[in-house]
Amino acid sequence: MQFAQRLQNVETSAIREIFKLLGRPGIISFAGGFPDASLFDATGIAQATRRAIEQHPAAALQYGPTEGYQPLREQIARHMQTEGAQVQPQDLIVTTGSQQALDLLGKIMLSPGDKVLVEGPTFLATIQCFRLYGAEVISVPIDEHGVQTDALERLIVEHQPRLVYLIPTFGNPSGALLPLERRRKVLELAAAHQVLVVEDNPYGELYFDAPPPPSLLALSTEVAGSRDYLAYCGSFSKTLSPGLRLGWLVAPAALLANAVMCKQFSDANSSMLAQVSTSEYWQTGRQTATLRQVQQTYARRATLMGECLRRELGNALAFTQPQGGMFIWARLTGANGTSTDAAAFVQRAIAQGVAVVPGTPFYASAPDTATFRMSYATVAEDRIIEGVSRLARALG
Amino acid sequence: MQFAQRLQNVETSAIREIFKLLGRPGIISFAGGFPDASLFDATGIAQATRRAIEQHPAAALQYGPTEGYQPLREQIARHMQTEGAQVQPQDLIVTTGSQQALDLLGKIMLSPGDKVLVEGPTFLATIQCFRLYGAEVISVPIDEHGVQTDALERLIVEHQPRLVYLIPTFGNPSGALLPLERRRKVLELAAAHQVLVVEDNPYGELYFDAPPPPSLLALSTEVAGSRDYLAYCGSFSKTLSPGLRLGWLVAPAALLANAVMCKQFSDANSSMLAQVSTSEYWQTGRQTATLRQVQQTYARRATLMGECLRRELGNALAFTQPQGGMFIWARLTGANGTSTDAAAFVQRAIAQGVAVVPGTPFYASAPDTATFRMSYATVAEDRIIEGVSRLARALG
Repeated sequence: MQFAQRLQNVETSAIREIFKLLGRPGIISFAGGFPDASLFDATGIAQATRRAIEQHPAAALQYGPTEGYQPLREQIARHMQTEGAQVQPQDLIVTTGSQQALDLLGKIMLSPGDKVLVEGPTFLATIQCFRLYGAEVISVPIDEHGVQTDALERLIVEHQPRLVYLIPTFGNPSGALLPLERRRKVLELAAAHQVLVVEDNPYGELYFDAPPPPSLLALSTEVAGSRDYLAYCGSFSKTLSPGLRLGWLVAPAALLANAVMCKQFSDANSSMLAQVSTSEYWQTGRQTATLRQVQQTYARRATLMGECLRRELGNALAFTQPQGGMFIWARLTGANGTSTDAAAFVQRAIAQGVAVVPGTPFYASAPDTATFRMSYATVAEDRIIEGVSRLARALG
Repeated sequence: MQFAQRLQNVETSAIREIFKLLGRPGIISFAGGFPDASLFDATGIAQATRRAIEQHPAAALQYGPTEGYQPLREQIARHMQTEGAQVQPQDLIVTTGSQQALDLLGKIMLSPGDKVLVEGPTFLATIQCFRLYGAEVISVPIDEHGVQTDALERLIVEHQPRLVYLIPTFGNPSGALLPLERRRKVLELAAAHQVLVVEDNPYGELYFDAPPPPSLLALSTEVAGSRDYLAYCGSFSKTLSPGLRLGWLVAPAALLANAVMCKQFSDANSSMLAQVSTSEYWQTGRQTATLRQVQQTYARRATLMGECLRRELGNALAFTQPQGGMFIWARLTGANGTSTDAAAFVQRAIAQGVAVVPGTPFYASAPDTATFRMSYATVAEDRIIEGVSRLARALG
């Protein structure tokens, strides 16, 4: 059987390799990307789901509007307003996870051969998602503060991309936090070059000590014309539960109308059971305490992992201590004659009983082969200590 | 902002026109396509959802396998085995409604310019879904027994389509039931011409007096080589609840592997809350009684609507009494000087206070402008009687 040409653009073997790492018995895994299921508010969600079906059976169990359950759209809009973004319910649609928002953006924006700029490194599934629509995906270099805006400007001019995809706040895999001035610069570039910037923000609420700078969306009021070239993807997966499979997309009106049209033919609407349940949950206000516990737990684990890494691997490893999110992105420096080959390091780490993810697949182009990703989000503290000791033994 | 070329292939104004009809106050609507929400087993689903979260919180609230929740895959496979199809859990994936199965098939199979054959008329969202992948969608004529297999063969030879999409059992909008012999012929054509046939079967369980002939999937064991060119889309939306937003796709291994890959970048996985809840619900066995009540209610309404139409509109209307499903597809015959212009008829019907859907948008090509669709599924019996009286007055 002959398949569509677009499938030839996607390379999944690297991804499969990563997934294979996760299942080995006895291994301590820093390789995952999931939130910690033990922090989900199962009691609260169970109660909300019961109320959803008992009090709104026709809404929760029937087909719903492609745009999303209206009370939930209103709650999301209010929530984003409290974070400083000017968003009305009609400015957003509910999506089947933020992954679907990316898929819809690809379908709406990308014709074969179009170029897309992303952070190098960035979220793996974004690269593959856009490649499936025929895009050429190009990496923009980052540093410890996220995307380098001078390089971004140069590459926008050079490639005339159809869109720029960024995770400015506690990026995956970088963990980096884009400072306020670079955020302004990104918005100025969007307006000046009339290029769509997609702000993916699944981790923004997972800050540790202090809230991050305003989202690009919130800041866009300060940069004339930038809102017309800005889309925003939000998610309930890291703050409430990925099992609901809900996210949202904020976008300019014409883009959003096309997203609704494409979503109608992609899955008609997102699970109404999940949407009405999430709306009921949010009405209880329990999400505040749930989020606080997630923030505190991840902060503790991040601090511990950072301390262990500095103590055990010393200057053989370079990384920035994350201020939020789920990931530490690290680079083998080669100090004291250690190897900078992260792929080989990962193999030795697995042999020692600890899994991390090699960095190369996270690059759409020009990979830094000395990098790898660790997540502390799901790992108990004693396992973090032991896992980092094993990593140190893998330095060789 | 410039959007992707593929959006230019889709015409949504006809669909919007139809949706506008549904909201008018006081109107009796035969125009819908939803199942009757009052027949959903809200109590059973609420109980199943509670058990899902209480007993399987880590499964129901976390990310899950892209292929679907394994116990649910096993239940679906067993269910299909009882219907005569040889299906193992690894032969299917769970999808976000059967609409997502169609979207994945489009993504996997269709390159711009590829041809697709569908029944004329067929499910609107399929036409648009495939057009979004650049396909040229061509109608194959149907009669009261569904697709005309001689015409299908001729058009396969003429167009060399990438796939053939059929709803053989109680089609939407046709309501038609493809007889056993034509089913065999379809399978022979699939094998002989090595063309993928997609069997969409959301209505097959909604039979009235007697079960329909075996699905193409079940019959494929009798036609050598046909299974290699057969995909099957199932759905929980008409038998359990559309609010769960769950369906499934059975396909040959290589195609299914590509579906998993594409789904990973479309929505990662379908709502695990919905999947685990559905699995728990099915374990109770309550679906048998739920389905029986749906069958009996729709059967009663279909019988009544057919009687009323014959009595009130007589030979001005041609239609086949459905043996299952949700729809009556009718044709204005022009008898006794009545008009055969269904678009004008629909406008007069709305003026009389009853909504039906004009047939033209259901055709990918060569529409029969005398046709329209009625659904009896959600309409109480006294409203069916009154609604058909209004329709008769609209004959003019």
